[in-house]
Amino acid sequence: MGSIPIVSTTVNPTAVLLISCPDRQGIVAAVATWVASVGGNIVHAEQHTDDSDAMFFQRVEFTHSDSVSLQTLNDGFAAVAANWNMQFTLSELPRKPRTAILCSKHLHCVADLLARTTYGDLGLDVVAVVSNHDDASPLATSFGLPFYHVPVTDGTNARAEQEETLGNLLDALDVDLVVLARYMLVLPPALVQPWKGRMINIHHSFLPAFIGANPYRQAHDRGVKVIGATAHYVSDVLDEGPIIAQDVAAVSHRDNVADLTRKGRDLETVVLARAVRAHVEHRVLTFGNRTVVFG
Amino acid sequence: MGSIPIVSTTVNPTAVLLISCPDRQGIVAAVATWVASVGGNIVHAEQHTDDSDAMFFQRVEFTHSDSVSLQTLNDGFAAVAANWNMQFTLSELPRKPRTAILCSKHLHCVADLLARTTYGDLGLDVVAVVSNHDDASPLATSFGLPFYHVPVTDGTNARAEQEETLGNLLDALDVDLVVLARYMLVLPPALVQPWKGRMINIHHSFLPAFIGANPYRQAHDRGVKVIGATAHYVSDVLDEGPIIAQDVAAVSHRDNVADLTRKGRDLETVVLARAVRAHVEHRVLTFGNRTVVFG
Amino acid sequence: MGSIPIVSTTVNPTAVLLISCPDRQGIVAAVATWVASVGGNIVHAEQHTDDSDAMFFQRVEFTHSDSVSLQTLNDGFAAVAANWNMQFTLSELPRKPRTAILCSKHLHCVADLLARTTYGDLGLDVVAVVSNHDDASPLATSFGLPFYHVPVTDGTNARAEQEETLGNLLDALDVDLVVLARYMLVLPPALVQPWKGRMINIHHSFLPAFIGANPYRQAHDRGVKVIGATAHYVSDVLDEGPIIAQDVAAVSHRDNVADLTRKGRDLETVVLARAVRAHVEHRVLTFGNRTVVFG
Amino acid sequence: MGSIPIVSTTVNPTAVLLISCPDRQGIVAAVATWVASVGGNIVHAEQHTDDSDAMFFQRVEFTHSDSVSLQTLNDGFAAVAANWNMQFTLSELPRKPRTAILCSKHLHCVADLLARTTYGDLGLDVVAVVSNHDDASPLATSFGLPFYHVPVTDGTNARAEQEETLGNLLDALDVDLVVLARYMLVLPPALVQPWKGRMINIHHSFLPAFIGANPYRQAHDRGVKVIGATAHYVSDVLDEGPIIAQDVAAVSHRDNVADLTRKGRDLETVVLARAVRAHVEHRVLTFGNRTVVFG
Repeated sequence: MGSIPIVSTTVNPTAVLLISCPDRQGIVAAVATWVASVGGNIVHAEQHTDDSDAMFFQRVEFTHSDSVSLQTLNDGFAAVAANWNMQFTLSELPRKPRTAILCSKHLHCVADLLARTTYGDLGLDVVAVVSNHDDASPLATSFGLPFYHVPVTDGTNARAEQEETLGNLLDALDVDLVVLARYMLVLPPALVQPWKGRMINIHHSFLPAFIGANPYRQAHDRGVKVIGATAHYVSDVLDEGPIIAQDVAAVSHRDNVADLTRKGRDLETVVLARAVRAHVEHRVLTFGNRTVVFG
Repeated sequence: MGSIPIVSTTVNPTAVLLISCPDRQGIVAAVATWVASVGGNIVHAEQHTDDSDAMFFQRVEFTHSDSVSLQTLNDGFAAVAANWNMQFTLSELPRKPRTAILCSKHLHCVADLLARTTYGDLGLDVVAVVSNHDDASPLATSFGLPFYHVPVTDGTNARAEQEETLGNLLDALDVDLVVLARYMLVLPPALVQPWKGRMINIHHSFLPAFIGANPYRQAHDRGVKVIGATAHYVSDVLDEGPIIAQDVAAVSHRDNVADLTRKGRDLETVVLARAVRAHVEHRVLTFGNRTVVFG
Repeated sequence: MGSIPIVSTTVNPTAVLLISCPDRQGIVAAVATWVASVGGNIVHAEQHTDDSDAMFFQRVEFTHSDSVSLQTLNDGFAAVAANWNMQFTLSELPRKPRTAILCSKHLHCVADLLARTTYGDLGLDVVAVVSNHDDASPLATSFGLPFYHVPVTDGTNARAEQEETLGNLLDALDVDLVVLARYMLVLPPALVQPWKGRMINIHHSFLPAFIGANPYRQAHDRGVKVIGATAHYVSDVLDEGPIIAQDVAAVSHRDNVADLTRKGRDLETVVLARAVRAHVEHRVLTFGNRTVVFG
Repeated sequence: MGSIPIVSTTVNPTAVLLISCPDRQGIVAAVATWVASVGGNIVHAEQHTDDSDAMFFQRVEFTHSDSVSLQTLNDGFAAVAANWNMQFTLSELPRKPRTAILCSKHLHCVADLLARTTYGDLGLDVVAVVSNHDDASPLATSFGLPFYHVPVTDGTNARAEQEETLGNLLDALDVDLVVLARYMLVLPPALVQPWKGRMINIHHSFLPAFIGANPYRQAHDRGVKVIGATAHYVSDVLDEGPIIAQDVAAVSHRDNVADLTRKGRDLETVVLARAVRAHVEHRVLTFGNRTVVFG
């Protein structure tokens, strides 16, 4: 995704337009004409027409004069969008989203996300590590980040109280993105809905195989020769949200449950990072329960 | 699996011993001592101990003097096996199993198996192509093979009659191996049981995801980013037999159902061929619903 | 590549425009505007801007009224192309290219290409199988195709004479595409140049590793853990033409040269078929020694 | 690799025997008999016969009574080894090797190794992070590790002096293992030889393609469709040591050099970690320039 024009001496701002609308003749020309009309230069454009739903999707990355604000561009494109019945977002690139990372006892994903952020591989502004356990506390501290421990205590309403505390915390943190980096408690719809399209989970299986608990145990008992991991936006139904990224690894009879778990860790870290990066770079569009992931 | 001894000028016969038994101390020594006692030379040996079931599995490939018959070796090892509560098979290598290939309308798997047999990649003695449709007839003829058309006719008992005809045909063909190369009718238990461990099916999905009909449609609707294919021994429960081989391919939103189907074809042909080869080379042991597939 | 519009009852013709030109502002709009101006409907469009060379590439697949001929469209677009300093091709889709397949003694690639053509996976009009050996003769006959045996005979100019015969044969066959499906003789520049961009070779290694003869032997001796295969357009310099497709497979110390060769065969067949399909679907653009392979 | 016996209430010590010797009849029986003779129970055994070199390799993992010391076992096996002309090592499992990690400016590999060590994925006792640059200093501090900065200063003998300092430091640290985690200076033979078989490097390409500097630039210019990474023991000749692990990832024309570099980082971290784990678990045997990497 080489987005840096080579000839320019001063770098113009880059914006990303994400569009979805019913497929009609002339959309591409309309969008390209608008970009040209505001003096923009298209650096990358990818489009996709979904035949089964007759929907059109496009990602247009363009540079523009820094005398034109993003707000002006946004207002300008709104008229085009109205004509074509489009949903769209227009975003600056790069822009580091304020991010909360949630985890439980397994730390490989959160450690990986923090390391990538540190060495510049992921454009995140991580503002908090949050967990129902305290195992990640030293790690967060190592990376100079606040750690919030939100445990499930004893008592009849313990779980509901924990969820309320967590919800309030996420609100107070005012984040743009929530990453569930092996956070092992199921979230209730009330906690999920505000973050629709902005909450990414890693599931430690190749969904939809082995939905639910202990997928590596399930995979072992079924004797599969391939395991996988799935990163998806969180929806109301557990393990059912739109898939952003998946990857797999070969396994054999030699791998017991512990081995599958260990091999799965590598998959989980890489797949989650890949999904988060695609989201941060505005390359993901969702429709129904599916995604378009450009480039 | 380089099985050709380098120094010999005349090639000694090669036998393969497949063993499974409860794990105990001293098994490896007992087997190796027996092979040495009959003047055999171990060319390859692989073993596996399954921790969760405390079972031991071994494949021993050894050369032996051609003055000793396989029957003699078999009788000789029976005493060792009795001592250790072993199940075992002892087979010559190579030996081309008499094979029937069953298919329906999709011909990529059968075409691939026949091509591989022709150019020496698969050690099969294919004696028949069998189908409920007649699409494969010219292909079978091209490769000089008899084609048996066993259609489901009209009438109340049509399906049961077809199954009886098919069962009788397989018996009459006197085959060692039945390969379901995209045969799309579910087989009844009575047809499956006689071929336990000798009937291999290719399922066009990454089992256990997308069990049942139209898996590529299911995969498309779920929006997965990876598709797969699974070769397995057939058991009474459809899609539930021990998995021999699986493989996967990356897909994207650009792939409609037809694209997934096309990409899946490449997976199916390769995975089925891989499973058939492992079977022919006596590299597969089953236990419960799982397999050990050596080297 | 879902290219079938869903609502239409009569299917309009589909054309593919492949464009390359220096990158400038407004190209996408110009092309889209032209397509709209001739009543076309863009079904798929993909573009790529190569930063390092400041080049723009686009593939536009569009349906058009069957009252407009391809020639008319071609003439019409020529004016746009002149304005933007474009190179372009405009082709009907689907159109089966007249194809000659060349092979030597290894038949897996030619067998696979013929099988795929037969069951509709590859849109080729194969008109000849050509070889310097006669091993493929029965296979060609099975598939009802003429076989041309062009051996290298004894004598001082044997190789030059064989090349001349082969060149004349390819001319006489009047083919659009030449596929080197494990044809093991190096072709001289005079035989390669007329087929620039229309002659595809499969090289049995992951180029540029193990250039030249016996790559699986080379791979074994280097102890690599992954082998590969490479399909590329043929250029004057052996093994140096633009790469269309590559794939790889994991190997281990257990694989001797024969095993690598066998595993490599699966790679070669799949990679060559993938490259041929991309070519036939007008998805490949070359620039310098590289390719853009769309979707 | 399931190494935990299931029935035992107290866990017996586990030892690993790594053997290489000329192939002869009876080796497996001799080793198994010896293990049984000392009251050991074989948990895993893998063997490999290399046909081309007529060499035999074996890894035997066995539990033994804790009343028998490793030294006693070692002395006992020496007699067997002498009889069969074996080279062998006998090691306790698990045993965390004292490890120095060397890096330069790219921190993804060192960050990954430290994170894995922290969450228990890699059995290393990391005692130092060493670099010719100071970029890794905060990272080492985060993980509570000493950081040694060994820069190349100005001056005629700067490089030789740096190498001497580095060599002395590694000696003083008294480590068992040196991991070159993207350490970008070539080491002289005098620095490599003492660490033969105990110094692991990650090379950011699929060796032997793109040997030397800037492999991602080389890969881009050649237009490859797959990139790779290679972990190997360091030998005198740069990029030529025995390969322990390799992996690859698909790329396309869309990936510029920066994209290849980013995708390569994921490969490098995973491949290096995999190689280090195999080494730590005593699963790697070298012979000539190749390796046997068991299970």
